[in-house]
Amino acid sequence: MNSTRDIDALIDMMAKLPGLGPRSARRAVLHMIRKRELLLTPLADLLQQVAVSARECMRCGNIGTTDVCDICTSEKRGNGQICVVEDVADLWAMERAAVFHGRYHVLGGTLSALDQVGPEQLRIPQLITRVDTENVTEIILALNATIDGQTTAHYIADQLEQRVTLTSLAQGVPIGGELDYLDDGTISAALTARKSL
Amino acid sequence: MNSTRDIDALIDMMAKLPGLGPRSARRAVLHMIRKRELLLTPLADLLQQVAVSARECMRCGNIGTTDVCDICTSEKRGNGQICVVEDVADLWAMERAAVFHGRYHVLGGTLSALDQVGPEQLRIPQLITRVDTENVTEIILALNATIDGQTTAHYIADQLEQRVTLTSLAQGVPIGGELDYLDDGTISAALTARKSL
Repeated sequence: MNSTRDIDALIDMMAKLPGLGPRSARRAVLHMIRKRELLLTPLADLLQQVAVSARECMRCGNIGTTDVCDICTSEKRGNGQICVVEDVADLWAMERAAVFHGRYHVLGGTLSALDQVGPEQLRIPQLITRVDTENVTEIILALNATIDGQTTAHYIADQLEQRVTLTSLAQGVPIGGELDYLDDGTISAALTARKSL
Repeated sequence: MNSTRDIDALIDMMAKLPGLGPRSARRAVLHMIRKRELLLTPLADLLQQVAVSARECMRCGNIGTTDVCDICTSEKRGNGQICVVEDVADLWAMERAAVFHGRYHVLGGTLSALDQVGPEQLRIPQLITRVDTENVTEIILALNATIDGQTTAHYIADQLEQRVTLTSLAQGVPIGGELDYLDDGTISAALTARKSL
């Protein structure tokens, strides 16, 4: 192997990142060493900064560098809508779509009997508190269309149906999707939810 | 997008690594932030160290943290054989195979008329110097089986044929390779170089 401990250790550490294996980690490290000024040093500095500054928003669970994230503090976003997502990655995906103008609540996972994840392991109690304290008009359940995701959606719906309007993302044919490649579940969901032209 | 500059910048920087795109960079960054103690902080420290310590071996071109790499300094490796490779990654691959016990010479690329890469842009003069100064008995040309790789091999052979034994890696069917999936060139090379059982 390559002749020095630091570099080996760096490769092993990089290989632990999702989407990278030992081979791609080696490629990445060699690439960084070749582009030291452009890539290696700035990347090291950024990691140091983020390691210090990154934190969870105490209100919605988004990841940022402030105790309460920009979305929660922004006046513009206070329209009474809260979009409930499993994960920060889902929140970021919603933000990239740039169509939702309310606030978010990140559960940090889904209910799962198998993995013994109950409401307390998720941020469901905090969500209920928010519904009681902030003037929330609508909860949009944007959970993944998996069994666990839907179970969690139903649980939250049961908890909140009396107090607030509950909606969920529409299911159907993805834009650019070809029927031929879609699973039966999606097709039947799209047929059931068909709309008149 | 996610609400903070540092994190965005980190994602953009990670996305520049080979094998990572914006999406996988986001996943990697979220993963690191979740595993701050285990991954983010140690990775930042390692990058800092490597950014300072990584350097090219002034003799063979390997990347390490010393001016002359462990392989070049190791007495055990001084058997008069020099394995010529295009790239540090190739050197590391040879070392993983752990069958070669000589030293290396990294060219840093291949001759290419198109990209205007001549012998001076590569480390070919240094190789010739090494042949004259170190007591080299054999040069093993382990260049990629590409047109540029083979052109470079031929050029080096022309330069050195009078002075030293020149060999190159055997070409043939890779271990575990299925004929059905092999290109014609490999099959014909393997047939030409067939050996009696």
